[in-house]
Amino acid sequence: MRGLAISKAACVGAGVIGGGWAARYAWNGIDVRIHDPDPEAERRCREVIANAERALCHLHGDMPARRGSVTFTDRLDEAVADAEIIQESVPEQVALKQRILAEIDAAAPAQALIGSSTSGLRPSELQAEMARPERFIVTHPFNPVYLLPLVELCGGAKSNQVALERGAAIYRHLGMRPLIVRREIDGFVADRLLEALWREALWLVHDEVATVEEVDDAVRFGAGLRWALMGSFLTYRIAGGEQGMRHFMAQFGPALSWPWTKLMDVPELTDEFIDRIAEQSDDQAAGRSIRELERERDDGLVALLEGLSREKLAAGETVAQHVAATRPAATADLDATAPLDLYRGYVTPAMVDYNDHLTESQYVEVFGRAATALMEALGADQDYRDAGGTFFTVESHQRYLQEIGLDEPYRIEVQVLGADDKRVHAFLRMVHAQSGDLLATAEQMYLHVDRHAGRATAAPDAMRARMDRVAGAHADLDWPEDAGRTMRPLR
Amino acid sequence: MRGLAISKAACVGAGVIGGGWAARYAWNGIDVRIHDPDPEAERRCREVIANAERALCHLHGDMPARRGSVTFTDRLDEAVADAEIIQESVPEQVALKQRILAEIDAAAPAQALIGSSTSGLRPSELQAEMARPERFIVTHPFNPVYLLPLVELCGGAKSNQVALERGAAIYRHLGMRPLIVRREIDGFVADRLLEALWREALWLVHDEVATVEEVDDAVRFGAGLRWALMGSFLTYRIAGGEQGMRHFMAQFGPALSWPWTKLMDVPELTDEFIDRIAEQSDDQAAGRSIRELERERDDGLVALLEGLSREKLAAGETVAQHVAATRPAATADLDATAPLDLYRGYVTPAMVDYNDHLTESQYVEVFGRAATALMEALGADQDYRDAGGTFFTVESHQRYLQEIGLDEPYRIEVQVLGADDKRVHAFLRMVHAQSGDLLATAEQMYLHVDRHAGRATAAPDAMRARMDRVAGAHADLDWPEDAGRTMRPLR
Repeated sequence: MRGLAISKAACVGAGVIGGGWAARYAWNGIDVRIHDPDPEAERRCREVIANAERALCHLHGDMPARRGSVTFTDRLDEAVADAEIIQESVPEQVALKQRILAEIDAAAPAQALIGSSTSGLRPSELQAEMARPERFIVTHPFNPVYLLPLVELCGGAKSNQVALERGAAIYRHLGMRPLIVRREIDGFVADRLLEALWREALWLVHDEVATVEEVDDAVRFGAGLRWALMGSFLTYRIAGGEQGMRHFMAQFGPALSWPWTKLMDVPELTDEFIDRIAEQSDDQAAGRSIRELERERDDGLVALLEGLSREKLAAGETVAQHVAATRPAATADLDATAPLDLYRGYVTPAMVDYNDHLTESQYVEVFGRAATALMEALGADQDYRDAGGTFFTVESHQRYLQEIGLDEPYRIEVQVLGADDKRVHAFLRMVHAQSGDLLATAEQMYLHVDRHAGRATAAPDAMRARMDRVAGAHADLDWPEDAGRTMRPLR
Repeated sequence: MRGLAISKAACVGAGVIGGGWAARYAWNGIDVRIHDPDPEAERRCREVIANAERALCHLHGDMPARRGSVTFTDRLDEAVADAEIIQESVPEQVALKQRILAEIDAAAPAQALIGSSTSGLRPSELQAEMARPERFIVTHPFNPVYLLPLVELCGGAKSNQVALERGAAIYRHLGMRPLIVRREIDGFVADRLLEALWREALWLVHDEVATVEEVDDAVRFGAGLRWALMGSFLTYRIAGGEQGMRHFMAQFGPALSWPWTKLMDVPELTDEFIDRIAEQSDDQAAGRSIRELERERDDGLVALLEGLSREKLAAGETVAQHVAATRPAATADLDATAPLDLYRGYVTPAMVDYNDHLTESQYVEVFGRAATALMEALGADQDYRDAGGTFFTVESHQRYLQEIGLDEPYRIEVQVLGADDKRVHAFLRMVHAQSGDLLATAEQMYLHVDRHAGRATAAPDAMRARMDRVAGAHADLDWPEDAGRTMRPLR
């Protein structure tokens, strides 16, 4: 495919959108030349690109094998002279865009694709003054361009179908999701939806029903999460239950004519229109039952909430607090003469590999949680850690004995093998909580550390006494066969 | 707080919403009695609760210490007789709700809080026939109620402020985010916004601009992700750049009057109104600069995309494909007489603890990726794995020597210590890619497995030859000091 082999792009206009495009191209190994008459453009654009690289590094876990170069030029013709694709992202004024696009058209190679980032102007109008308008299309991205996959593609009256297809191939190669807009309308599809929400949001603030923060909260703690996952139609199909979309329309359609929003013009829900929606909704569901869609929805929402929870952002903050508040505190009878039952849980979707089995690192994660529970039982709790004291795991030796699958329950038993003034030596067993099968073992050494001093220190007396108590209570247990084990060389 | 100590709730109406409420209460250890006249209600509701438990187990990684009981009764008065809170979730018909609420009011204890799940009917109207209307409020949740945190609280003319406050405390305890609606309007805040989007979505389908799937895609691959994180106003504040909200309104406000959406009535952007928005936006930003907000936005979007990527859902599917396509393939010179440089990466936000250092399990995750790269270099690639062959890590012994922080780069060097017909013994070093410091080591044993046969098998000849080649090439390297190490007992 020709679209996949491009190596040179140009950005004309380098604000937030143009800079975002440049970052996406460079990350994908494509050299970018940039033109923007604003003397501040280069500084601002390089800031956008640096921010973008940080985020993309986080998303990919790595830098790309080769980053494309990013160069600036004062001359538009120089910027586009050998580009295979040109992104126009100048301010949203028809006459300005028409003039710039004509200049790009005149200076760019005949085969180059030219795309406008306009969020709503019609391509037929924009291509009016171009000599070769057939290779022009609208390529409307969403901020931040380097992270959000959507790009709307829309051709004008004189655009070539080949240009649309080539654009779609290039953007897929850049990690985007091209959406080809069927009919040329102002605002295309996405901005019509954005505007509708934004307009109603302004009314709510205008009428003093809510503040801007309350309006945002009403979205991000609720329906916004569903929108990120499924949009409106598929969400409502699920709400319709086993009878599907037609049922939902019958049940909730009439509410559309209730005087809720400020804007009352609604399409008439004729039988024919409802049929069309129901049929398109069937196509979208592609054979997935309501039960399957519900699970997909829930798995997706859990994934979103877990991600946000890790960052303590938006709904994730609420969830993180709730999970912390409801998790049972680690309590252990340090005088018990049996291994301590310190951590229990279920294998969740975040913990499994492509075969739906617990991954290697998640065995270690779970052992780590049991170790934390042991430390808490010894007195190294959150307050203690906040004050700078903690235990580090300095060494761990695991044996992986058996697989455990998604949704299955496990528990961790901890046997303390010994302790001195700053170390605890323990043997952990992960056991399937239903079958009782031994799944994995870990022999671990923990070292008491003063983070402020930056070195190992003796544990305080009270903690030391607890360490001795549990080590003493476990002294009569059999020494685990695997403790002190080494791997025998194969040659 | 009295609100935090409730132990009994009732649900009247047990469809998708009532069932969702029941699931949330039970998960939080609160006993629920349910009344719904539909003979199918109990079966359906138990299905909703089972689904909910599965999702909540995934989100919390555990079951709660105690689940509340869920019981059904044919009699409304019995359901509510000793409830501390009652959720009414019957169909959206004013007269029906008024009648049911009056019945609940008559049968419930005097101190019980009564909430209606209505998505848009006014509380003043709903409480009209109650004898003790002061303890009634609207408590509008979002489907699925057990996962989405938002609940809108709205009192009517006769509602008591105490009821709102008590409701807010109870819902916070349930892991929800209560939003108190300042003014009693139809549709409250959230459903006004939902309806605005839904209405425009219907027009787009009606006018054959897009199919229902395309409309959903236009949301979930783009702005939907921002909505899940920040809503509209904070997103636009960032788009306004360093000059903030006032600048955004000046730049993009006029577009509101362009004929994009079908519904044209827009609030007039007077200076006073723009001032109000700008001031409320400042409050919302709470001192965070645009740069800080941009990073928060990007971190949040990365977290959302990572979560979705794991589930291969929505925008995450696009991202997962792109990350896989751009990740350099594992290539290793098996004849090299130095350790193999098999994996490089950066420490990302998903990999760090609360101190922004790489967590223990993520050291193992990274070692695991290097091990996968080694296996691929030996010929156990994706095709080989799809056919059922693979290597399992059966044993691993790590030493954690030094911390590495967020955004810092690392690489993994792999020394093959030996191989036989079905095993590979290797020693891995994690090195800081800038300072060259040794961060951690892992001695690992891999076993060739036939997943179909469910047991260890000899590697095929070609793979065996590669295993021997690399073991032979590394035979002259120094045996790592830590290989074969054991932990010395402390007593």
